[in-house]
Amino acid sequence: MNDFPEGSVWLVGAGPGDPELLTRKAERLLREADIVFHDALVSEAVLDLIPSATPRHSVGKRAGRHSVPQAMICDTVVKAALSGQRVVRLKGGDPSIFGRANEEIAACREHAIAVRICAGVTTASAASATLGLSLTLRGLARRLTFVTAHTKAGAVPDLDWAALADPQATIAVYMGKSAAPHIARGLLAAGLKKSTPVVLVESVSLPGERSFATRLELLPLAAKTGLGDGPAIILIGEALGEIASEDTTAVARETKARHDQSRSNMRV
Amino acid sequence: MNDFPEGSVWLVGAGPGDPELLTRKAERLLREADIVFHDALVSEAVLDLIPSATPRHSVGKRAGRHSVPQAMICDTVVKAALSGQRVVRLKGGDPSIFGRANEEIAACREHAIAVRICAGVTTASAASATLGLSLTLRGLARRLTFVTAHTKAGAVPDLDWAALADPQATIAVYMGKSAAPHIARGLLAAGLKKSTPVVLVESVSLPGERSFATRLELLPLAAKTGLGDGPAIILIGEALGEIASEDTTAVARETKARHDQSRSNMRV
Repeated sequence: MNDFPEGSVWLVGAGPGDPELLTRKAERLLREADIVFHDALVSEAVLDLIPSATPRHSVGKRAGRHSVPQAMICDTVVKAALSGQRVVRLKGGDPSIFGRANEEIAACREHAIAVRICAGVTTASAASATLGLSLTLRGLARRLTFVTAHTKAGAVPDLDWAALADPQATIAVYMGKSAAPHIARGLLAAGLKKSTPVVLVESVSLPGERSFATRLELLPLAAKTGLGDGPAIILIGEALGEIASEDTTAVARETKARHDQSRSNMRV
Repeated sequence: MNDFPEGSVWLVGAGPGDPELLTRKAERLLREADIVFHDALVSEAVLDLIPSATPRHSVGKRAGRHSVPQAMICDTVVKAALSGQRVVRLKGGDPSIFGRANEEIAACREHAIAVRICAGVTTASAASATLGLSLTLRGLARRLTFVTAHTKAGAVPDLDWAALADPQATIAVYMGKSAAPHIARGLLAAGLKKSTPVVLVESVSLPGERSFATRLELLPLAAKTGLGDGPAIILIGEALGEIASEDTTAVARETKARHDQSRSNMRV
């Protein structure tokens, strides 16, 4: 079966960053592609899976940096396919979850280009694997919700906090670091307990990966002082309690101390 | 780096069924394992990736059939690891999402056995890839919620319908086929529109895969008459509109006709 004819497009999930977390199918499609267009955030180690003779172009967005507008990405992908090339559009995570896959699919379909999706491991799955815990727990965390806090610079994420603030649910906030104060405020106002376990995981599955366990009331502080510059996912809910309970107190104390330190530095 | 020493356990996500949707890491761990314990629902094609000399045992559950109790699964995994074997516990989808990973992790930790998780492609991701659409849409479907409707036989799933019934969210119901009437009733009562697009996908990513597009008010009928015996995921929300809008009317008409037919047969 040839599922990658000339002039067709595959939107391929690159997973969270570790090249071992690509699917076997993604690996094959990268091998078969004539050209690859990839998000700026796709890791070097993943790009190394593309045969060296295959042209590759970075087209994706990067929070707060200059990037290619979506309409131009669509045009580029369409043009390559219309020229008869087998095109892989490589997207971080899973294309169907906050990957804006629909815009590129619509553009392809307008030009009668065959376009398909190869699913990937989404960041929340990889983050919980790193932490060695389950995002769902029977009886305790029976619902799992993914939201994105990504907004135009400075804008407040407009989320339905009442629906999110369910003590029996786990929340994964994609791209939530800069919106952490809004998230904490919204969830606390909607009734989630201050002590709700929270873990931030930065650069999931990459060599620079680090995680930071805290509790909801300290999330803004933790997002500001606990991590580096990498993209981060925020996991919230009782399911995170197993890891968070072990070190919450110590971590919270450390966070508080760093904050006081930084404030005192600022005063000096 | 040896991340799979003797006497350790990996909980490995097998993905939805297509052996190409395993991660490269899962493939490696299966190759390195001394023994594999797998869910009953893991497909033959995936099991074919296990080297033929490696012992494999089916331990998982299968809805409505005789299966190994969870405590016995934990015991079996622990015993194999304590005997010094490298154990892969292969679970359908992603271990952290409705995989009951936590119970096996806790059992391993009680015996000081190193246990880790290898993330997998979850069924909702693979189902949306099959359908060629995104589960999230900017401005239209900004929240994605996974729930399971799996309950003890005959029990009504006790879900927070009010929190789920958000017209700007996409819902993926794992193992929802038999609970379809409850799901439709709950969401309609909580305010979701009768015309909300719904797609059922059965045997996701397997050769027998099929999907059925309908709308919320016809979900119970569709779940009863539209699919075969395979496990199914139900996707609900406006993001499904792109596929559902094309054939909803025809499909709904067909469903209704089949239903009337079956009722008339029953009367005869």
